[in-house]
This record gives sequence, structure tokens and C-alpha cells, in this order.
Amino acid sequence: MIIKTAAPLAPSLKEIVKPILPRLAQVEDRLNAVALESEGILAEASCYVLEGGGKRLRAALVLYCASLNGPSEEVYDNAARVACAVELIHSATLVHDDIIDHAVIRRLKPTVHIRFGGDVAVLLGDFLYARAFEMIAQVGNASVTELMARTTRLMCEGELDQLKHRFRADLALPEYLSFIERKTAALIAASAESGAALAGLPLPEQKALSGYGMNLGIAFQIVDDILDIAGQEQKTGKTLHTDMGSGKMTLPLILLRATLEGEEQTGFVERQRSPNADWKTDAELAGRHNIIEKSEAFAHDYLSAAESVTQIFSPAVRRTLSAISDFVVRREY
Amino acid sequence: MIIKTAAPLAPSLKEIVKPILPRLAQVEDRLNAVALESEGILAEASCYVLEGGGKRLRAALVLYCASLNGPSEEVYDNAARVACAVELIHSATLVHDDIIDHAVIRRLKPTVHIRFGGDVAVLLGDFLYARAFEMIAQVGNASVTELMARTTRLMCEGELDQLKHRFRADLALPEYLSFIERKTAALIAASAESGAALAGLPLPEQKALSGYGMNLGIAFQIVDDILDIAGQEQKTGKTLHTDMGSGKMTLPLILLRATLEGEEQTGFVERQRSPNADWKTDAELAGRHNIIEKSEAFAHDYLSAAESVTQIFSPAVRRTLSAISDFVVRREY
Repeated sequence: MIIKTAAPLAPSLKEIVKPILPRLAQVEDRLNAVALESEGILAEASCYVLEGGGKRLRAALVLYCASLNGPSEEVYDNAARVACAVELIHSATLVHDDIIDHAVIRRLKPTVHIRFGGDVAVLLGDFLYARAFEMIAQVGNASVTELMARTTRLMCEGELDQLKHRFRADLALPEYLSFIERKTAALIAASAESGAALAGLPLPEQKALSGYGMNLGIAFQIVDDILDIAGQEQKTGKTLHTDMGSGKMTLPLILLRATLEGEEQTGFVERQRSPNADWKTDAELAGRHNIIEKSEAFAHDYLSAAESVTQIFSPAVRRTLSAISDFVVRREY
Repeated sequence: MIIKTAAPLAPSLKEIVKPILPRLAQVEDRLNAVALESEGILAEASCYVLEGGGKRLRAALVLYCASLNGPSEEVYDNAARVACAVELIHSATLVHDDIIDHAVIRRLKPTVHIRFGGDVAVLLGDFLYARAFEMIAQVGNASVTELMARTTRLMCEGELDQLKHRFRADLALPEYLSFIERKTAALIAASAESGAALAGLPLPEQKALSGYGMNLGIAFQIVDDILDIAGQEQKTGKTLHTDMGSGKMTLPLILLRATLEGEEQTGFVERQRSPNADWKTDAELAGRHNIIEKSEAFAHDYLSAAESVTQIFSPAVRRTLSAISDFVVRREY
């Protein structure tokens, strides 16, 4: 994203969170260690999933929010564990979601179920979840453990709900939002909140960061949905048009349906109801009706909401949070 | 099991653990509540899996071991949560393992992936795991949380290892034992240990109960493996001969291979290496070479080991633990 914007390129996530970069490198080391501590096919498949991939947005949020109450080795150490666990949970959901979405490419490589088989993909996801909770338990903070378990449950519920509402061209906006709040935004919110909790920030600040993460997460998913309709596979590094091909209604498609009239709308509804319908017609219609721009406006509204809930923080903190938001919305992958 | 034994029928698990029966009923209520707190297909699939099924052996072990340091409402309350979580974890592994084993019947009903589809089965398993850790986190005992997460990870590792060693007719006994220790016995050991930890029993007693559970769990899996070759589907309520049909080497098959000679052995090895080979020949050979009896002897050895590690307990406790062992080995389902 975002294809038609004239704004300058946002700095990469690494530049934004420079002060916590050494900690982020430790999280990467930890993830590699998790991949290498197993044996056989599990080690192979774990390495395949964990090494050098991903934006590590969630880990960066845990670490950055954990840094907001003054530097402390103990806090950083616990935050690194939780940050690593959050990336493990995120990876587990990707492995399982790719099975469900029949996606064949992720991060420029064949997905796990394509490369290692569905059996290994199911068990690898389970392993990554379990390893994540083992790591979180070692921190010994029951409320963070509960937050992460609840968030993981919400993600499953959101994904299942969305699965059940496939091929429903009349999906309403609030339903869509309720799916993506749980499926995507909840873990981003929990990343920020858990970092804040580990740092011992006052409860209103923890909740503000959770709210920031929730709004950012919704914007993040909207960007993902825009990329699914208008992105380039080389840049996103994953199979695109899976939403359109699988009857999954996304924001651009909901906005498109609301815009179309007469025969165009009837055709759209018919395509949404049939598996493997041609997505190109909808992509063209979306282009003609400025659906990408309208969807981007939605994403920006959520970023504004993310900014407004962080007004209790200092200008420096708000600048960093705002830069993270910018990174999320301007990414092309 | 056990087809040719002349011993009287063991009392049911409910009679054995009579003092904790009201607590076990509370666990059942909790499981039903978990199933009902969701919505839509998740509630339907959860009810399908959780209601009235299973022996609840693991829950009974948590509760019984939690009762061994004098009655305490707080301990029982925490133990009920962990007991419920253990059954959720167990159910999650069954749902995912049935996908992997292509099993079609479980507890006399179509398996989840057959009834609701593979997509729902993957997400239902994830949901049950997450709900389990949410419940465990609420107890606020970090070492019990870590034990359960570690155990869940070991189960995934054991299952993956076994999956990778399919169609290997030369699987050695120690390899088989290392699979089933992790795949099955670890959770039974963790059930006993977590109950003991919640009760605040001295560490040697916690470890003795863990050792009891581990040996009991190995015997339990051997009985399962015997049922797969010699059980009746109406009684076990699940698809049998999946091990033999899927190249999974079990104790009876390992013992059979070691017994066979010449052409019979060559034929056996060939059948083990080919998917969907006829299991009836092996079942007949197992009957002719007393493989069931030899496997039963193995199970009894592990039960003896389970008894010997519990010698630090009072005769009354040992009688109950021994009755639980008897129940496990005499079951036909």
C-alpha cells in the first residue's frame, strides 16, 4: 500500500523503534532458538516459518510499550519473552489460516501445508501455540497470560465466524468489523497492552495503548484487504485474491456492493455466492468506483482514532506511535 | 480390553473416585458452560465434542491428587479449573489427531472434521487449546501453567515424531515408547502432578504422582494400541485399525515383527510399508502368535512400575491409585 498516494515513503519499522532495536534482535534470536531446539521435521518446519520472516510489528509493540516506564532489565527480559510468544502465536495463526484459506504462497515461499503437508501444518501450529504459552508462563504474570490466552481464543472465534459467513454478499459493515477486531486487531491490542502491563504503567495508560493497538489493528487488516484486491504478489509475498476467491467479504467488497446498482450489483452478488468466481471483474469494478480510495479513507479514520486515544502520552511517545501507524498503512507487504 | 482375562470387571471410574464425584460433576458443568458460551458453529461444534463424552480420567486424576492434602475449597476450586482445562486440551488433541489419522468415528459419532469440515476442526482445536490456557491462567499458578504448556508442546512433538516415522516397519521399542510417553502419557502425568502441586503436596510426592501418571499413561496407550488391533468398534466407539491402515507402528505390531520369521516377516514388512495394506492378515497373525497377551504383559509391567513409585503414600491412597490403574487396563473403550 498505498498505490496512489503521493506521500513520501514512511521510514521502516526498524528506524521508528531504533531505541529498542537491540531488544528486537534478541527476540529474533529467541525465535531462532525455538526453531532449533526441536528435532527432525519439527525443527525444519519451525525454521521455515520463523526465520527472518515477517514485519515483527507485534514484537516491536510489546517492546516499545514495555519501555515507556523507564528502562529496566527485568521488564525488558520479560517483554522479550512475551514479544517472542506473540510472534509465535501470530505465526501459528498464519500456518492454520493458510490451511483454511488454501493459500499456497506466504512470504514468497510455499505455505507450510503445501511444503510439508497438511498433517505437519496442523501440528506445527499447535506446537507454536504451546511453545508460546510455555514462554509466557515463564514470565509469571497471570494477567498477561490470561490476556494472551483470551486473545488467542478471540482470534479463533473471529476466524471461525468469518469462515461461517463466507459467500454472504450481504455481510454488513458491523459484522465485518467484529470479525477483524477479533481475528487481527485483538493480538495487536494485546501486544501493546501486555508491554504496558509488564512495564507497570498505570491502568488508564495500559488501556489507552490497548485501544491504540485495537484501532491500529483494524487499519492494518483493512490495508491487508486492500492489498488482497489491489496489491502485487511479488511485494506482499503471499497469495492474493484469496478473499475474493473464497467468498470472504472484505471492506473493499462491502463498499463495492454498496456502490453498485442494478445489473452490476446483481452480478456482484452472484459472483460472491459462487466459489472460485472470477475476481478480476470485481477488481476492475473496484478501480472504476474508487473503492480503494474509499477503503483507505476508512483505514485513516481508524488511525485517527488510534491517535486520539493516545493523547494522554507525551509528544515524543505520540510521535513514535504515530510513526508506527504510518508504517502500517503505507506498507506494500 | 482385555478380551481373554478371567478377572472380575473392575469398578467404574466413578465408583473408584466417589469422594470427588461432586467435583467431577462440577467439571462436567464447566465443560458444558465452555461449549455454550460461544455462538454459532463454534458452540455447535464445542457441544458436539465436549458434552457427555469421554472417561474424564485426566480430570479425575487432577481432582483426586488435589484432594490428598486435606480438603480445601480454594484448592478444589483451582483444581476444577485445571481439570476442566486438561479435558479441553485432551479434546483439542483428539480433534486435531482425528484430522491427521483420517479417523471417521469417535465416541460413536462422526469425527469433527467429518461432521463440520476440516476448516472448523482445525479452528475448534485451536479454540479449545486457547480456552484451556485462559482457564489455567485464572488459577494464577505459573508453574502449573508452564507444566501444562510444556506438556501440550511435548504432545505435539510426540505426535509429529510418530507421524514422521510412519511406514517404518523396523521401528524400535524405545522409539515407540518415546512417542507414546509424549503423545499420551505426558498429559496423564501432568494431570496428577498439577493436582498435587495445587494441593501443595511436598515435591517428592508431586514427582511420585507424576511418575505414577507417566507409567499409567504408557499402559493406557498400550491398551489403546491393543484395542486398535483386537477391539470392537461398538465398544471403543471409534474407528479402529487406523494405526495398521496408516503405517503407524504400535507395540503389538513391534512385538509381532520380532516374533515373525522368514516369509511371514517379509510379508509383514511389506504390508507395513504400503499405505492401506490389509490389516486383517496382521490381526490374524497377532492372534496366532499370542501378541495380545504379550502386549498385555507389557501394560501390566508399566502398571507395576506405577504402583512401585507410589509407595510413599498411605495404603488407602495406594488402593485408590491402583483401582484407577485397574480401570485403565480393563476398559474396553
